[in-house]
Amino acid sequence: MYPKALEEVMADLQRFSGVGIKSAERYAFELLRWDALSLQSFAQHLLALQSEIQECELCHNIADDKRCAICEDALRDHSVLCVVSYPKDIIAIEKTGQYKGRYHMLGGVIAPSKGILPQDLHIDALMERLDNEPVEEVILAISPTMEGETTALYLAKLLHEKNIKITRIAHGIPMGGQLDYADEMTIFKAFEGRTKM
Amino acid sequence: MYPKALEEVMADLQRFSGVGIKSAERYAFELLRWDALSLQSFAQHLLALQSEIQECELCHNIADDKRCAICEDALRDHSVLCVVSYPKDIIAIEKTGQYKGRYHMLGGVIAPSKGILPQDLHIDALMERLDNEPVEEVILAISPTMEGETTALYLAKLLHEKNIKITRIAHGIPMGGQLDYADEMTIFKAFEGRTKM
Repeated sequence: MYPKALEEVMADLQRFSGVGIKSAERYAFELLRWDALSLQSFAQHLLALQSEIQECELCHNIADDKRCAICEDALRDHSVLCVVSYPKDIIAIEKTGQYKGRYHMLGGVIAPSKGILPQDLHIDALMERLDNEPVEEVILAISPTMEGETTALYLAKLLHEKNIKITRIAHGIPMGGQLDYADEMTIFKAFEGRTKM
Repeated sequence: MYPKALEEVMADLQRFSGVGIKSAERYAFELLRWDALSLQSFAQHLLALQSEIQECELCHNIADDKRCAICEDALRDHSVLCVVSYPKDIIAIEKTGQYKGRYHMLGGVIAPSKGILPQDLHIDALMERLDNEPVEEVILAISPTMEGETTALYLAKLLHEKNIKITRIAHGIPMGGQLDYADEMTIFKAFEGRTKM
């Protein structure tokens, strides 16, 4: 019923979670009012997602290069390693400006009901890093959801075999909530009040 | 803080009304999981919005060609002309399958506070059509918002100069609501109960 080009963009937009037919229509009509240059740069940016973004070979965070800026930064404290589930958790923690150590990004949480098992996360790579790097403390900064709890307990069990201090950020973050939605002070408090596991 | 390609896509996504930083982040991370082919076709569809979509020279609706499919359809009733504000209103009315006449798309509503004056809408083109086409009835199908009311009254005043029956779709549509959010039966009832202005 709509012109084909518009129907196609609406179908693309509906692939985003939470975007239904009405929102897709609204966004598509907004796009119709964008000038040619804006549409071209949006299209180029989409293509750049594939061609330019890499995964850091060390911490598995998204990166512009083979290694991310944090892993490449010699001034970061190599004795502390913060384990997170997603790249955006690293952004949220970096915004507090309080954490000076390095990160390890798991790529998710253990969720057997969704088919996500420990071997699907970057856990082997984490164990390897602990053997090769002078890490004295591992901070688990995993959202306190049910699946996050499972993941933290699983990791704690594994890590106890190594002679390394294991801590977990405090429940300053509301239970059931998402780490990256917390404000900076809450995240800072959570880091301050971390407890030994 | 994020890789540049991701930051750029987030900035693009935040141009959509109602999409803030959190939603843009979420959508951008979803895009990271799209395969190369999907991203390429999304990018192409965006570019096609500029290159393929035209405005019907007669009714000003969006079209695949110089004239839209409805204006090109010889079977539509040329004696009835339905005036709407936006292309998506035409889609909403067509879905009822009850209206057999043709359309005229204004391109908005009169809203002096936003700088939208009568001359910014396709009103001159409407007047010209009424002089050249065998129109016996003009149905105003404009959303009953405050600005829609202003637009309808303005048009009714202009149209009274022509010797044409002017009607307005009934207030089956909730006052203050948007026409394209109404269900098909409500729109159908609104057409049935239209009143002479």
